[in-house]
Amino acid sequence: MSLSVTEKSDTLTSKTIGRILEYIKEERLSAGNQLPTESELLKILGVSRIVLREALSYLKGLGLITSRRGSGFKIAQVDFAGAMRQALEHISILSSNSLDELMELRSQLEIGSVYEAVNNASQSDIDDIFLVLKKFEDCIQTGELDLEEYQSLELEFHQAIMTSAASNTLNIINGAIRSYFTASIRQKKQYALYHNPELASREFIEHRMIAEAFALHWPEVAETCLRLHLYKNRPRNLS
Amino acid sequence: MSLSVTEKSDTLTSKTIGRILEYIKEERLSAGNQLPTESELLKILGVSRIVLREALSYLKGLGLITSRRGSGFKIAQVDFAGAMRQALEHISILSSNSLDELMELRSQLEIGSVYEAVNNASQSDIDDIFLVLKKFEDCIQTGELDLEEYQSLELEFHQAIMTSAASNTLNIINGAIRSYFTASIRQKKQYALYHNPELASREFIEHRMIAEAFALHWPEVAETCLRLHLYKNRPRNLS
Repeated sequence: MSLSVTEKSDTLTSKTIGRILEYIKEERLSAGNQLPTESELLKILGVSRIVLREALSYLKGLGLITSRRGSGFKIAQVDFAGAMRQALEHISILSSNSLDELMELRSQLEIGSVYEAVNNASQSDIDDIFLVLKKFEDCIQTGELDLEEYQSLELEFHQAIMTSAASNTLNIINGAIRSYFTASIRQKKQYALYHNPELASREFIEHRMIAEAFALHWPEVAETCLRLHLYKNRPRNLS
Repeated sequence: MSLSVTEKSDTLTSKTIGRILEYIKEERLSAGNQLPTESELLKILGVSRIVLREALSYLKGLGLITSRRGSGFKIAQVDFAGAMRQALEHISILSSNSLDELMELRSQLEIGSVYEAVNNASQSDIDDIFLVLKKFEDCIQTGELDLEEYQSLELEFHQAIMTSAASNTLNIINGAIRSYFTASIRQKKQYALYHNPELASREFIEHRMIAEAFALHWPEVAETCLRLHLYKNRPRNLS
């Protein structure tokens, strides 16, 4: 079967996006500089107006260029973390395998930065970690776990232990995980294993071990506990 | 100063993108399902045609929807890794702080997955690591280092040690780093510290230590060496 006109134009749009980025680099344009006008770009790129506009809309959506009525497009001041956050959130909402990939990414990033995080942790960082731990304890003691609350505490804990690593990217990933959960709220019930009180109490102890390793300034122990917490001893799940 | 019409419409486009994604989730549309027609969407969203088209072009550019002449838009089969790879590459080309962020991300991901990588490494994975190491040695022995070749070997080495971790995300990051270097080829000369033979030979030994730890199946040592290699003993640079 031959490609439809629009499938061809999809490929063309994606090539055009690449060529506009190349052009910007070659001409050494930087934040605040003007892009050529639409008709100049049409000449430079040799594509149809529809394809050009699609490419420009995409770049604008990613935050790489901005437009202002009557004065065409300008190169934006690109904030890497912000742009990544947005793209990651949009992609993760519609991708069916995104939760697994996000969780894997988060696990690797956390294990890879927990050593530095323990070394950098201030007393107030450690206090914050124990504050979340206290909430976990209260949540477990009230009996039946509210799943949504549990998930939110789980994210909060991992965010708290990572604050002192000052990893921008981890914040982005955690934001995307949060968006994913918010977007797929109806699918949450599959995580019913958290209604298992034995597992919940085990999880609590694992979290406490990690928190204590922070308090003792034992980076190796924090790292080993975190790796076992994230990867071992139980089926892959939420955390 | 008040917002210009187009700045307002930038915000509107970004809101519209979010609302289309929400709509897809609420209606539980999945891959292959049809989006409402343009005029239905205009009614549902209450925005101008220009804003709607910008939002749809962005979603199409990210690969979340596809279009086909005469039959409107469909939800795409979203490949998380592929979509992320593309967005990351596009963003990293134009973001001025992207190299630092990509390098930090790669460091954390590598340290976070090298333990599993050593445990999973097959003999052929280890052979591949030593093959890259041999190229490094040859490159150093010919005297003056060719910077571009060195950078490429550096990427190849880190890719090789991570093959057995089977981390999709790390491949994405490495791809983006490669694109970044390709795109910013003129800026490379700042990394002239690699013309320092003493440093190059130290780098070689660090790489060999990591490789040997793989060969000995010593995950803890590989992890510690990699952390020191990436973070300690020398100013932040290329690797």
